[in-house]
Amino acid sequence: MNTFGNILRLTSFGESHGAALGGVIDGMPAGISVDMELLHAELQRRRPGQSRLTTSRTEPDEAEILSGVFEGKTTGAPIAFIVRNHNQRSADYDALRDVFRPSHADYTYTMKYGLRDHRGGGRSSARETLVRVAAGAFAKMALRKYGISIKAFTSRVGSVALPHDYTSYDLSVSELNMVRCPDEATAAKMQSLIEEAKAQGDTIGGIVSCVVSGCPAGLGEPVFGKLHAALASAMMSINAAKGFEYGSGFEGACGYGSEQNDSFVRTANGEIRTATNRSGGIQGGISNGEDIYFNVAFKPAPTLLRKQNTVTSNGEPTEFCAHGRHDPCVLPRAVPVVEAMAALTILDFFLLQESYK
Amino acid sequence: MNTFGNILRLTSFGESHGAALGGVIDGMPAGISVDMELLHAELQRRRPGQSRLTTSRTEPDEAEILSGVFEGKTTGAPIAFIVRNHNQRSADYDALRDVFRPSHADYTYTMKYGLRDHRGGGRSSARETLVRVAAGAFAKMALRKYGISIKAFTSRVGSVALPHDYTSYDLSVSELNMVRCPDEATAAKMQSLIEEAKAQGDTIGGIVSCVVSGCPAGLGEPVFGKLHAALASAMMSINAAKGFEYGSGFEGACGYGSEQNDSFVRTANGEIRTATNRSGGIQGGISNGEDIYFNVAFKPAPTLLRKQNTVTSNGEPTEFCAHGRHDPCVLPRAVPVVEAMAALTILDFFLLQESYK
Amino acid sequence: MNTFGNILRLTSFGESHGAALGGVIDGMPAGISVDMELLHAELQRRRPGQSRLTTSRTEPDEAEILSGVFEGKTTGAPIAFIVRNHNQRSADYDALRDVFRPSHADYTYTMKYGLRDHRGGGRSSARETLVRVAAGAFAKMALRKYGISIKAFTSRVGSVALPHDYTSYDLSVSELNMVRCPDEATAAKMQSLIEEAKAQGDTIGGIVSCVVSGCPAGLGEPVFGKLHAALASAMMSINAAKGFEYGSGFEGACGYGSEQNDSFVRTANGEIRTATNRSGGIQGGISNGEDIYFNVAFKPAPTLLRKQNTVTSNGEPTEFCAHGRHDPCVLPRAVPVVEAMAALTILDFFLLQESYK
Amino acid sequence: MNTFGNILRLTSFGESHGAALGGVIDGMPAGISVDMELLHAELQRRRPGQSRLTTSRTEPDEAEILSGVFEGKTTGAPIAFIVRNHNQRSADYDALRDVFRPSHADYTYTMKYGLRDHRGGGRSSARETLVRVAAGAFAKMALRKYGISIKAFTSRVGSVALPHDYTSYDLSVSELNMVRCPDEATAAKMQSLIEEAKAQGDTIGGIVSCVVSGCPAGLGEPVFGKLHAALASAMMSINAAKGFEYGSGFEGACGYGSEQNDSFVRTANGEIRTATNRSGGIQGGISNGEDIYFNVAFKPAPTLLRKQNTVTSNGEPTEFCAHGRHDPCVLPRAVPVVEAMAALTILDFFLLQESYK
Repeated sequence: MNTFGNILRLTSFGESHGAALGGVIDGMPAGISVDMELLHAELQRRRPGQSRLTTSRTEPDEAEILSGVFEGKTTGAPIAFIVRNHNQRSADYDALRDVFRPSHADYTYTMKYGLRDHRGGGRSSARETLVRVAAGAFAKMALRKYGISIKAFTSRVGSVALPHDYTSYDLSVSELNMVRCPDEATAAKMQSLIEEAKAQGDTIGGIVSCVVSGCPAGLGEPVFGKLHAALASAMMSINAAKGFEYGSGFEGACGYGSEQNDSFVRTANGEIRTATNRSGGIQGGISNGEDIYFNVAFKPAPTLLRKQNTVTSNGEPTEFCAHGRHDPCVLPRAVPVVEAMAALTILDFFLLQESYK
Repeated sequence: MNTFGNILRLTSFGESHGAALGGVIDGMPAGISVDMELLHAELQRRRPGQSRLTTSRTEPDEAEILSGVFEGKTTGAPIAFIVRNHNQRSADYDALRDVFRPSHADYTYTMKYGLRDHRGGGRSSARETLVRVAAGAFAKMALRKYGISIKAFTSRVGSVALPHDYTSYDLSVSELNMVRCPDEATAAKMQSLIEEAKAQGDTIGGIVSCVVSGCPAGLGEPVFGKLHAALASAMMSINAAKGFEYGSGFEGACGYGSEQNDSFVRTANGEIRTATNRSGGIQGGISNGEDIYFNVAFKPAPTLLRKQNTVTSNGEPTEFCAHGRHDPCVLPRAVPVVEAMAALTILDFFLLQESYK
Repeated sequence: MNTFGNILRLTSFGESHGAALGGVIDGMPAGISVDMELLHAELQRRRPGQSRLTTSRTEPDEAEILSGVFEGKTTGAPIAFIVRNHNQRSADYDALRDVFRPSHADYTYTMKYGLRDHRGGGRSSARETLVRVAAGAFAKMALRKYGISIKAFTSRVGSVALPHDYTSYDLSVSELNMVRCPDEATAAKMQSLIEEAKAQGDTIGGIVSCVVSGCPAGLGEPVFGKLHAALASAMMSINAAKGFEYGSGFEGACGYGSEQNDSFVRTANGEIRTATNRSGGIQGGISNGEDIYFNVAFKPAPTLLRKQNTVTSNGEPTEFCAHGRHDPCVLPRAVPVVEAMAALTILDFFLLQESYK
Repeated sequence: MNTFGNILRLTSFGESHGAALGGVIDGMPAGISVDMELLHAELQRRRPGQSRLTTSRTEPDEAEILSGVFEGKTTGAPIAFIVRNHNQRSADYDALRDVFRPSHADYTYTMKYGLRDHRGGGRSSARETLVRVAAGAFAKMALRKYGISIKAFTSRVGSVALPHDYTSYDLSVSELNMVRCPDEATAAKMQSLIEEAKAQGDTIGGIVSCVVSGCPAGLGEPVFGKLHAALASAMMSINAAKGFEYGSGFEGACGYGSEQNDSFVRTANGEIRTATNRSGGIQGGISNGEDIYFNVAFKPAPTLLRKQNTVTSNGEPTEFCAHGRHDPCVLPRAVPVVEAMAALTILDFFLLQESYK
């Protein structure tokens, strides 16, 4: 199950320390102009070593397109791309061969497959998310044509949260700081918190929020294919995700119907809209034309620069202490991944809806 | 997309006020003993009119099995079942023909399909969840054979939450009270809160929690088929769901790695286990043999016995006020639905894992 | 795998002697007018007991629609229908409980599932094809709207074949005779051959041909989803099918390129067409706008009114002789099944192509 | 739809004259020893330029494995591989930019996508089949472990056919001659026929046959997933395929039941077998443990070294004459492709069957 989507499908492959990671995008409409700068820029947003808040592993992470593009346009054929692994230092990982790192996938992969590629987490490495980001860039190229845009940002790190909801901020500002938070003051506090954690060899988690604008009404498929169910699956498939909520989410759910309902109104130009948007742009699993927004919780990265108790693959008690290049907080780099998965999901359902018209 | 699952697949059909609802379960292993009492009991748990906290619509909700069972056992052929709609009163819904009820699916279905069955929400009605409950009963029959059990309960209503985590309670007790909460004192408070809301023509939401016990390590499929991503999709596909989290969830995500990691330990009998279970039984998307637990937020039902502003299907402003049989709180009846979707998901991944052995 | 199709999906259920057979059609466009007379007529074409050439089991075979249709139109919700089994005489089949009938599925089902429903073949019975015919009727309702029509006919029985290709005949005439062959003289010979076989307790097979007219260019999906690959799968899934070929088929394949190529020409009104159509309307797996035509070989039914050697389920040698109601030739009743599977396939690819526009 | 299979899935990508072709195999069991020599050998069997009967384009066609293999074994992660295109001479194809070659996919791709990669057929090129051959080599590595072997051979070219059925020959001999026919005398006649066609700038087609040995009973999924329906789809997805039949096929279908049925017998060692095998190893869509055998018809390649009438992309009448490297007969190189698609199909259903045990 390394394929995602219904009629727009991404197949992902590759391990952290294998020859290359890559993906195949099937079902992309033909005739979409391929924007290589966007592809490059998105990969740079996810790339390690961007700032002192992220791992210092510095991979160039350049994608080579192998198929599906001809004379600058998509052809309808599957678009395959690869990103070579350069900065591998596999020997660094020899110590991991026989240790199950706490809260990593070492133990479960071994139980599932009977063996594992221990080098940097192998297939379970968050490095896999570069595949999603590259594919998401292609999805964005198509969505742009349909007037749909997607913007994610860090809304909470540890105990520091954005004080207001997303409508209070200029979301484009979030790219100007290291944590990708659209409020400078909050960003500064988040940054301090992350640096404190890092200084102690610890890690910290938080919440990424995302807004989809310009999405027409009608996307989403009852019953099991509700748009928010698909978004939940997409987001929860990202490494370290622990929770998903849309619209007024958990907090709104614990309120009263009289406070949570969104009244329909007619606008001056005759459109039907909702007066409020606690529904997060989705009602009955189908988009209603309002902004779609949701939150994704990411746990603190499990790799600590501290000693932890664990066991070897034979079950012998041992201690494990990571060294080297590790993110004290995955949030900033998760932002483009969230956008990418949202873009793939929305484009898939957009195309699906076209088929019924 | 009325089909759920990978190699165990449920196809659901039916509208609230059509002839019948039903489902087809494909991929069920052959030779499973069919427990008609369990099927009946599960449908009764979901049935409306169980108590004064739920809608007084009293459907008998008996399933007729049409295929796939022979001499008391599953045959490997698809199991089809139907539940006839009896207590329809479609005329009650004539008033809805031209009104878009706030925070329902009336508007979005119309935008998607160009028309809608307005009788009781048609396909978008929560009555569809009886299909899941019936199918889930079959999944439980198979899971029982493999030693896996599933138990859900109401853990929060409005501001009233269970004070401790699930390990502090005897979960089987939850079926003894109307709200399906395993703590009697908390249940009483939740019940009061729901009755207050009802008295004011209002509704209230909350959280259902679920625990899967006895699940072997190794279930779940990297990368996009992570077990928690599949559970998220399953749960978010239930009517009124607004959020999903597993293990330590949103709260744990906003903590530190040093507090969230689960150390591996060797037990007296030589098994590898985790000392704590903040991971919620899933690491890297694959079950690790510990309890799987998660929360699902359900919004307050949008049908209020109060006047609300809305528009007609022509966009004319109007007022809408529901009458008759409506749940002031969907949580108690969502409990068996959450269990059913969990059972279908876990069995699907259990069978999938068998294929690789 | 009781589901067929990509974005138009039929899920089939039911056994020959269970309570009912039926299907769920998911992905049908909303707003299609439901033609109950067509549905009825198609089921009558497949029904047993139509003539002395077919089994005398006389089921009324009326479909009850359970969902997905409202006020005479499809709603976009799944369309479920059932056909009750009335004329079951299960006791007739007690003799089959412990016998593996030659060239039936008794043995293989037992090997696959560890048990089987022996009544009339259970799930493997050709009675399942009524589900396809009912679903195909719905597909035809949609295709009619898009100007696409489908016509199948018997082109060969035993050694008697239609002397010319399909363009020489008025295909609508085929419904006027018992064998469903568009040439009266050939039909008479086929009929004699079948009656001779019947008189000897034997059965005879042959070929059904099918023509799809009005299909636009562009349907079909490279690489694995070639239109003729999908048609092959659809046709070979019909009980008793042994072979599939399209366009000039096996015979043309054994010829020369210079004789088999279809030249492109421009017609008087400026259209691009092919001068000949050995390609059968499909080039590179994609429809080219010409008639799509193909042949399906159906083996002689394995149920003989003669003694045959076989073994019991314990492997003991025994003799088996069928009694009662059995078709001496399945061809006439396979004709509507071939049309139905073609209709479902073409509509699925038509809708898929819409999604990319 | 560039993905093939149910739980073993091959995703194919690449164009004839793009940077590379390749595939991703998902669902391969972990722990399978990777036999690089087999992979290499299979690609060599399909490679152009093997003999004077095939195109003289001489690509080295070496596969690079990018993922899913670690220390010589499959890991359960997706196996991605690429084959770079070297000998491209794209300029050779400039003449094709505005011409629709007869019986190629030029016209239909243009109608489907609105544009096309004209270089050597782009995605529609038979060069894509190298992806299948490479993936099939992996499938064979797994099947070998389960005792299943697959052997294809050329059984007919033009009017020259093998005089006896496959059981009369030592199939391994077929690799010793250029046409891959297991009978030397027949092979010589086929070779002459192909050389005659080539001398006249013509092409010739025929039939490839395939035998699967050692396949256990129980593979195949009723109703739509019948094993022969899946094989039909797999085979018809190969470039130039025009027909598929299994067991006694078209000829047997036009016979009598009394001659076509396979009696069950008990062997000396107590096994249940069939006395004959007209069923081709499949009954009711499920393997019965006998040899599975089938035929695939391949049309004469449409590229002639002769002038043909056609039109330009504007519909203007023109003449087209191919030059250069083209196969006068695709059969010899189709043999490994048929084996590969059979291997992928059988392994997929083998794994699927494991899931129900």
